[in-house]
Amino acid sequence: MTIEIPKSEFQERIRKVQNIMKRENLHSLLAFSHEAEPAYVRYFADYWPSFETTAVLIPVSGEPALLIGPESLTYAKSRSKIPKIMRLTDFRESAQPEYPGADLSTWEDVFSEFPTERLGIAGFHMFPHTIYAGIEGALGDGEIVDADDVVREVMLIKTPAEIACLRESAKISEIGFKAVVEQIKPGMTEVQVVAIATKAMLDAGAEAIGYPIWCCSGPNSIQAISRPSLRKIQEGEFIHVQIGAKVSGYSTSIARPIVLGRCTKEMRDFMQVGCDAENLTIDSMRSGVRASEVAKKVHGFIRDRGYGDTILYGPAHGCGQMECEYPFIETSSDIVLQENMTFHADMFLAKPDMGFRFEDCIVIRQGPAEELSNFRREVIVI
Amino acid sequence: MTIEIPKSEFQERIRKVQNIMKRENLHSLLAFSHEAEPAYVRYFADYWPSFETTAVLIPVSGEPALLIGPESLTYAKSRSKIPKIMRLTDFRESAQPEYPGADLSTWEDVFSEFPTERLGIAGFHMFPHTIYAGIEGALGDGEIVDADDVVREVMLIKTPAEIACLRESAKISEIGFKAVVEQIKPGMTEVQVVAIATKAMLDAGAEAIGYPIWCCSGPNSIQAISRPSLRKIQEGEFIHVQIGAKVSGYSTSIARPIVLGRCTKEMRDFMQVGCDAENLTIDSMRSGVRASEVAKKVHGFIRDRGYGDTILYGPAHGCGQMECEYPFIETSSDIVLQENMTFHADMFLAKPDMGFRFEDCIVIRQGPAEELSNFRREVIVI
Repeated sequence: MTIEIPKSEFQERIRKVQNIMKRENLHSLLAFSHEAEPAYVRYFADYWPSFETTAVLIPVSGEPALLIGPESLTYAKSRSKIPKIMRLTDFRESAQPEYPGADLSTWEDVFSEFPTERLGIAGFHMFPHTIYAGIEGALGDGEIVDADDVVREVMLIKTPAEIACLRESAKISEIGFKAVVEQIKPGMTEVQVVAIATKAMLDAGAEAIGYPIWCCSGPNSIQAISRPSLRKIQEGEFIHVQIGAKVSGYSTSIARPIVLGRCTKEMRDFMQVGCDAENLTIDSMRSGVRASEVAKKVHGFIRDRGYGDTILYGPAHGCGQMECEYPFIETSSDIVLQENMTFHADMFLAKPDMGFRFEDCIVIRQGPAEELSNFRREVIVI
Repeated sequence: MTIEIPKSEFQERIRKVQNIMKRENLHSLLAFSHEAEPAYVRYFADYWPSFETTAVLIPVSGEPALLIGPESLTYAKSRSKIPKIMRLTDFRESAQPEYPGADLSTWEDVFSEFPTERLGIAGFHMFPHTIYAGIEGALGDGEIVDADDVVREVMLIKTPAEIACLRESAKISEIGFKAVVEQIKPGMTEVQVVAIATKAMLDAGAEAIGYPIWCCSGPNSIQAISRPSLRKIQEGEFIHVQIGAKVSGYSTSIARPIVLGRCTKEMRDFMQVGCDAENLTIDSMRSGVRASEVAKKVHGFIRDRGYGDTILYGPAHGCGQMECEYPFIETSSDIVLQENMTFHADMFLAKPDMGFRFEDCIVIRQGPAEELSNFRREVIVI
């Protein structure tokens, strides 16, 4: 049976946001998404775009509308939990195809149906300038404000249905990782390692990979963000494998270092610090704890072991619809952890010539965090 | 051997754009990309982003810089053909992680190295508003203009190396399609069909899938843009399969309708019109022909056969780095086809309850177009 979010929960999300909009004096909220950042629109509509972009327009009271591009109507109808759908030229592909004769709505049409003097935009930092300018023109004297915080306030605490999706995602990601461990061999390309994980996860019920997953090996292993290359993996080097499945819009991630053949003491010592730091992160993240304290404690541990130079960022980040979302566990973070927040404990360490990541999804609880994955949290030597 | 673009060609692209910038009186050009739209930056730098965004800053004379987010440095260094790399907060993930203590550049730093009074932005219609506003502040009295046309002018005519990448992409896409035809069975999910193609293409040397490829079946087959669902494919229905491989940044696409078991006369007649229209499109697209004439002829043919209501858009679109890029073959198009332009002939037709696409990559020649793929351009009944 597919694990999914019940339709009533989508309606509940709209109501929760509308309550915050009242407090923030917003007449409408526009939640934007594109192909690589589907979170906001999927959260409210269950629709996730491809090629074209999209937004959900939520009025402070009443029913929302899904705004899409010219070619996405039949796809959007098959997915959207929001019945009202409007097509606008502004959500076409960025290459700007022409649609001679097509009957498309304008921003004036939108705002005549949804009168707005103060508009909040979520996805503010990826919102295209030309669409912004078009809305400014249509709104006249109306005001536009950053509304990322409005949506984050609702998204931050996960419901049982959301955690069930993440749990299933983690289960399928473990299946993908086990397939890699079983099939990986020297001479395969990094891309082929990714192919093994992808096939296993899609066959096991994932709707997609959760993000552009990767394997990076040898000199590439130091890449905090990466894409798999056609480099052939070799014995005796770090192979940094990072994969995750998407289930009903929710994405987890598992990362482990793998070594084929001989693992030197230098490699083993370095990776053990990462593994211990990951366990310390998970053990420290409990309801009521200040995020900055977690980051300071874990970074202090790594520095005390003599690996301070290998740190790039904090030991955990929020997750849910996106593999990486707000909030971030940094020494500068001012949030306090609450029950049913979900995070990726994300321990990436890199020297100039070798690096790796340990990563797993956890749910914040009163006591120890619930670990959604923990498959062989160790140096995997094959 | 991997088919790829020689390093000298990346430098040549910069020089060509600089010549157009002189004509257009631009001091600098900023070419922007994000995870789902990597084309502009990959074209100049061979780097394609994930999670974070990126841009290439090209001065009207002298050497360019690659601008990246805080976490992408080691990845970017491993891929970029542009040696100079600057990290800016503005290219971080849209969820806005914090990087306390990180040494990052500002737009003021960029424009003190690249003095600019008139800045062109390519990727203008996806360029984030907040970055735009930050640049406006840093430029002071400087002007910002849409420079998509400047880059398109260089990208439009493909070089032999680019066509070799597309040819290899089409070859690998055919391998993926053959794997689907060999392995597809009733009861598989749409996602599992995609998994077969993905595995086959990555094993055959693709660096990635070229776009979020899909299979949509039965009632979903009417979706012009889609993503695969967990619906199980059945006998006697349209299964619309659309896949493509990415090779050194270049993406082609093959689409065919598949029917398992019995194909009714209604289905066969409808699909034959699509197949004939696709062949007519390819036959009509030659150097010197006006794009609008192709669209009018092909749409006229479909209308004459009684299927005018099933048309959504024009019969072809440009391709290269992106599966779909400028220019578009529409009845309103004013371009004239030139040798070494590359297109996807893209025949999507849909009735309210059934639809399909035929799609193949072609290269415009003096005589008949060169077809990069033509695997079983027919109704595939299994």
